[in-house]
Amino acid sequence: MKNAPPLRPDGRRPGEARPFALELEFTLHAEGSVLASAGNTKVLCTASVEDRLPGWMKNQGSGWVTAEYAMLPRATHTRSPREITSGKPSGRGQEIQRLIGRSLRSVVNLEALGTHTIWIDCDVIQADGGTRTTAIAGGFVALVLALRKLGQSHPFPAPPVTGYLSSVSVGIVEGQTLLDLDYREDSRAEVDLNVVMTDSLEIIEIQGNAEGQPFPRKSLDAMLDLAEAGVQSRLEAQKKALGGRLV
Amino acid sequence: MKNAPPLRPDGRRPGEARPFALELEFTLHAEGSVLASAGNTKVLCTASVEDRLPGWMKNQGSGWVTAEYAMLPRATHTRSPREITSGKPSGRGQEIQRLIGRSLRSVVNLEALGTHTIWIDCDVIQADGGTRTTAIAGGFVALVLALRKLGQSHPFPAPPVTGYLSSVSVGIVEGQTLLDLDYREDSRAEVDLNVVMTDSLEIIEIQGNAEGQPFPRKSLDAMLDLAEAGVQSRLEAQKKALGGRLV
Amino acid sequence: MKNAPPLRPDGRRPGEARPFALELEFTLHAEGSVLASAGNTKVLCTASVEDRLPGWMKNQGSGWVTAEYAMLPRATHTRSPREITSGKPSGRGQEIQRLIGRSLRSVVNLEALGTHTIWIDCDVIQADGGTRTTAIAGGFVALVLALRKLGQSHPFPAPPVTGYLSSVSVGIVEGQTLLDLDYREDSRAEVDLNVVMTDSLEIIEIQGNAEGQPFPRKSLDAMLDLAEAGVQSRLEAQKKALGGRLV
Amino acid sequence: MKNAPPLRPDGRRPGEARPFALELEFTLHAEGSVLASAGNTKVLCTASVEDRLPGWMKNQGSGWVTAEYAMLPRATHTRSPREITSGKPSGRGQEIQRLIGRSLRSVVNLEALGTHTIWIDCDVIQADGGTRTTAIAGGFVALVLALRKLGQSHPFPAPPVTGYLSSVSVGIVEGQTLLDLDYREDSRAEVDLNVVMTDSLEIIEIQGNAEGQPFPRKSLDAMLDLAEAGVQSRLEAQKKALGGRLV
Amino acid sequence: MKNAPPLRPDGRRPGEARPFALELEFTLHAEGSVLASAGNTKVLCTASVEDRLPGWMKNQGSGWVTAEYAMLPRATHTRSPREITSGKPSGRGQEIQRLIGRSLRSVVNLEALGTHTIWIDCDVIQADGGTRTTAIAGGFVALVLALRKLGQSHPFPAPPVTGYLSSVSVGIVEGQTLLDLDYREDSRAEVDLNVVMTDSLEIIEIQGNAEGQPFPRKSLDAMLDLAEAGVQSRLEAQKKALGGRLV
Amino acid sequence: MKNAPPLRPDGRRPGEARPFALELEFTLHAEGSVLASAGNTKVLCTASVEDRLPGWMKNQGSGWVTAEYAMLPRATHTRSPREITSGKPSGRGQEIQRLIGRSLRSVVNLEALGTHTIWIDCDVIQADGGTRTTAIAGGFVALVLALRKLGQSHPFPAPPVTGYLSSVSVGIVEGQTLLDLDYREDSRAEVDLNVVMTDSLEIIEIQGNAEGQPFPRKSLDAMLDLAEAGVQSRLEAQKKALGGRLV
Repeated sequence: MKNAPPLRPDGRRPGEARPFALELEFTLHAEGSVLASAGNTKVLCTASVEDRLPGWMKNQGSGWVTAEYAMLPRATHTRSPREITSGKPSGRGQEIQRLIGRSLRSVVNLEALGTHTIWIDCDVIQADGGTRTTAIAGGFVALVLALRKLGQSHPFPAPPVTGYLSSVSVGIVEGQTLLDLDYREDSRAEVDLNVVMTDSLEIIEIQGNAEGQPFPRKSLDAMLDLAEAGVQSRLEAQKKALGGRLV
Repeated sequence: MKNAPPLRPDGRRPGEARPFALELEFTLHAEGSVLASAGNTKVLCTASVEDRLPGWMKNQGSGWVTAEYAMLPRATHTRSPREITSGKPSGRGQEIQRLIGRSLRSVVNLEALGTHTIWIDCDVIQADGGTRTTAIAGGFVALVLALRKLGQSHPFPAPPVTGYLSSVSVGIVEGQTLLDLDYREDSRAEVDLNVVMTDSLEIIEIQGNAEGQPFPRKSLDAMLDLAEAGVQSRLEAQKKALGGRLV
Repeated sequence: MKNAPPLRPDGRRPGEARPFALELEFTLHAEGSVLASAGNTKVLCTASVEDRLPGWMKNQGSGWVTAEYAMLPRATHTRSPREITSGKPSGRGQEIQRLIGRSLRSVVNLEALGTHTIWIDCDVIQADGGTRTTAIAGGFVALVLALRKLGQSHPFPAPPVTGYLSSVSVGIVEGQTLLDLDYREDSRAEVDLNVVMTDSLEIIEIQGNAEGQPFPRKSLDAMLDLAEAGVQSRLEAQKKALGGRLV
Repeated sequence: MKNAPPLRPDGRRPGEARPFALELEFTLHAEGSVLASAGNTKVLCTASVEDRLPGWMKNQGSGWVTAEYAMLPRATHTRSPREITSGKPSGRGQEIQRLIGRSLRSVVNLEALGTHTIWIDCDVIQADGGTRTTAIAGGFVALVLALRKLGQSHPFPAPPVTGYLSSVSVGIVEGQTLLDLDYREDSRAEVDLNVVMTDSLEIIEIQGNAEGQPFPRKSLDAMLDLAEAGVQSRLEAQKKALGGRLV
Repeated sequence: MKNAPPLRPDGRRPGEARPFALELEFTLHAEGSVLASAGNTKVLCTASVEDRLPGWMKNQGSGWVTAEYAMLPRATHTRSPREITSGKPSGRGQEIQRLIGRSLRSVVNLEALGTHTIWIDCDVIQADGGTRTTAIAGGFVALVLALRKLGQSHPFPAPPVTGYLSSVSVGIVEGQTLLDLDYREDSRAEVDLNVVMTDSLEIIEIQGNAEGQPFPRKSLDAMLDLAEAGVQSRLEAQKKALGGRLV
Repeated sequence: MKNAPPLRPDGRRPGEARPFALELEFTLHAEGSVLASAGNTKVLCTASVEDRLPGWMKNQGSGWVTAEYAMLPRATHTRSPREITSGKPSGRGQEIQRLIGRSLRSVVNLEALGTHTIWIDCDVIQADGGTRTTAIAGGFVALVLALRKLGQSHPFPAPPVTGYLSSVSVGIVEGQTLLDLDYREDSRAEVDLNVVMTDSLEIIEIQGNAEGQPFPRKSLDAMLDLAEAGVQSRLEAQKKALGGRLV
């Protein structure tokens, strides 16, 4: 009889995600505000509506959705200096916020927004692996909340959101395929894969990199299988938080 | 018979402060971590111990305490761009973080710290007036928590903290002297005064400015009377959170 | 018989200010130009009229007054790098220029200015303590001179300046309350207090900090007594320089 | 009988890559220098050996490989301002150079490098789609050339490169899966996928995003099939350019 | 009999220039594109037409020509960091691009351009001395090519270019006056002189500096004699490349 | 009989310079401090001795001299923003400070300085044309004064300054060759030439540019004749200010 795989540092099974929670209206002022947490990872996602567009978008007949991502200096094990201290945006942060923005725009009907920009700010309060996928999942909910508010004063000519979206990370650690890596796992993973999917499990974004070991296509398949399960589970939490309706 | 003064927007009496709360260990990684709130104002204060000193401090035989202050983009009614976007630190933020750092250093025995820097990061999660005094009061508690941790591995040759400290704002709105202004009051105040005091009510820092109307010395006295009451009340909360002992 | 207090390093008595002088039209091009000196501290204050407003002020029906403060690299005992070299504005400079701008605006009727910005540039040629109060006192005179010029082409609908203003520093050094600290005194002061007052000795701005030793309210009172005398004396010099009239 | 798919704008079949060429020693000074071109896309890849390490790498007993990516201002249809003009690195450039660096490091034995940093500079002379994959393929060759030079003076204790690597892009345009998109195709693609693979066709990095349309896993499979063919073809060119040997 | 002067490192005679070549249409997208080379020095010069003007030029009834100059990181013997890495434009680069811009504007009729800006980007692919004069000579040709394109859609009211222009460097090395210094010569030159001239050999710009040894006016004369010959020879190449006509 | 040339705006003859003055010890702290003025142009030149070297100079067995140049915001007819406001050093300022530094280094024996850096700060208090040549002439005097001070504590193994140096501008305005242009002349000059010379009238630096009109070599000669006279006259003032001795 085959042995059960060894348990993960926090006792989870390979295909088990961390508890995922969404605390709505975590802050007062933003049109949408969600504290998204996956285990010890906590990301404050706010969506802000601005009734103007970036310069290069003007006169194009559509709105815009953009994201910013940052970590509080002591969200991590050791303190990281603020970006303004070095005077340069963090390369990692740029990479992540571009991912968040692209992903969210893929389910938004920008034409329906009118001349509005929606800013999705994802600020990591506490980091323990998986901050970018948590930010995407939480940012989506904040976005929907903000669009609901906007819709009250600006009736949309068409549904502004075309579908649900969620995101989760998977990886390979010591040869084992794991769902939703925490920091201890992530820091010694051979492969790290972040996936953004719709609720029909079609792919919006896939980013995988072999930090330690190139991997064959069948490993990619195994990781995508786990990712699908992880996305479905997060989508349930998102749908419940949103009361079962999109905008 | 004289009429009672009109109630404030949130129903408080002139000398009544907002509920002040300190949530310890709000985040995991920092040596000291406190969510300080005064009504709807919420500031995450973390204290991080680093075992090195800024270049200009080297070979001076003492440690250092420094503070940074920032607001999340949507801590306020409308979204403010991040500092890194403009490429420049906010002037207001600079002014405030210098105040926080100076105040905290005034009750620290830097010589006792050895070659350590303590970073106090004050990040405003939600702003509703009084963020700087809330940051000082919360930052002090985070500082003490971090020094306790440091003291376990680095026995201090002398007490590293020389006394308690707190801070509160007072102001004059429509001729009335008020304690602990919220944003609605602050934005139309004639005078705004921030005070940092020890627990014997001696002054560490006083910053007052007449945004609308110069004020006579007797108004300063009336404001300081209210400030003393406000500081005492906040000090009680700080002492209770710290279990009644300094380090 | 009580002993006389020991003389200060430059022979002054505790309540004696340094010679304060205002050299008008120190430079040619500015609408207002004043070299303000307090002992060895020399600050060139120019006021420049610009017939446009900052972006965020537009369509608000009033003008603007703003200040910038900087030190020449070798205004001080050792050379300080220029701000552009580090790429960042100095925190201390930001704090000071915000103080100067706030103070001057408090005596200006911005509505009367029309769509004009007045820039007050305070550049420290030589520093020996008290640069910020010298800058405020000199900047006020430069401002009035510039408004006189502006008034010739732009008749003001109402007096643009609502009253005189001056500023001086006081402090406590080795337990003694002193007026107008020079650098040697300032660098070992227990308390440092900067005050901006109107000519009826009402307070516009008060900023005190206990660098070495918290202080009781009666020390604050003693310092304010000295400050009043210092402000009055500087106001006389300012009034004389302006020919006894405001605008 | 099924119709043949319509030809692509430049007459290629769906699975046909553009001519891929590597011009070695395109410049004189760099230890490795390659002009990599894929059709009209031309990227100058240089590898520079520096005998020191970044600060954070010191005392870790291994070397480092890092990449930078930029476009000349008029590499594109319209002129883009230089990064130094805006004062900020381009987010897109950051994302790409992180991808290049991670990919190349995955086939380098950093321990074998000693205290050397290899800088891979990828400067796009002319852009027509696929600049990042062309940069990776060309950068790999430049890296090997530089390591050969370094090996002459610094005998490696172990092979510094652990295997070949190449990269190509695939995408879906109007429902058709295409290899090696040029700019006209890329700008209207529904899906864009960049793949980095070893010569055993294991995956080093995979980045796909659905700019227009989420895609099912079977589309991912179809794209990976094309990518494998594209990578194999580019690998042949790389191996030939390197004379059939790694270092 | 006097001995012949010793040959230069690359075997040239003192008054002999390096081979000067212009490769037109080196890149596809720019309105004008020239790879200018002088021996091993290679500068890619592109001219880009933009149908707008810098803010300060608006409503002045004329167009603008401006230049930017940069070196690829490994154009030189050792790698130089990119400007964006230090966050500051290189002082040397600023000095050179101002020279290029001024020189080219001196032969352009800005009024004839209408509301267009022509950007001349000079990017040094490989440096071996004389990059600035090579950039000016190549940039002039790129400028003319771009104006020809612009003229097709925007008929000029008057000839936009008023004459030919070229540039060359001369210097004194070990007491000998030399034309067109390469890097080995330049790095040990006593005097370095860059000249920009019209085709009637009038001076547009002259910049000479005695890095090692002040020089008398007769040395200046000797250098200008050589420079005239060098400019004439480069002008022939430019005229040939342009087909013998200006615009 | 030939007519006398028309007088210049301020009544000077073509070959007549503006009054040139040097006020030594204009500020207290700098090792050398000179207010140099040429008519209404006033430049504060300070020389600061620092007992360390820039990183790239270390272990080269010689000292360093470097210059910085800036204008106060209202040194000019209209206010110019500070460099720190735009976040970038001014291109013009960079060009000028490189000229000043190169020129001064050409008469300094860097080996004799030991491990010292001399900073020459040239801050324009008031601009009326010719600021760079005034800065060079004044900066030289400040440099000598600072070296005298340094020599008292650091006896030089060899004379640190190898000779006198001065600088003046000449130009062509409406066809007339003029010495020492003021702003009104400079702004409409066809040719502008700045010259730095030794006291044997050998050339250290020559920078001429035809802003309006290319010029023949005989015009260059005529300008150099005037420049020689201007340099001699300024050298007299410099020698007198220095008491007739170099260091």
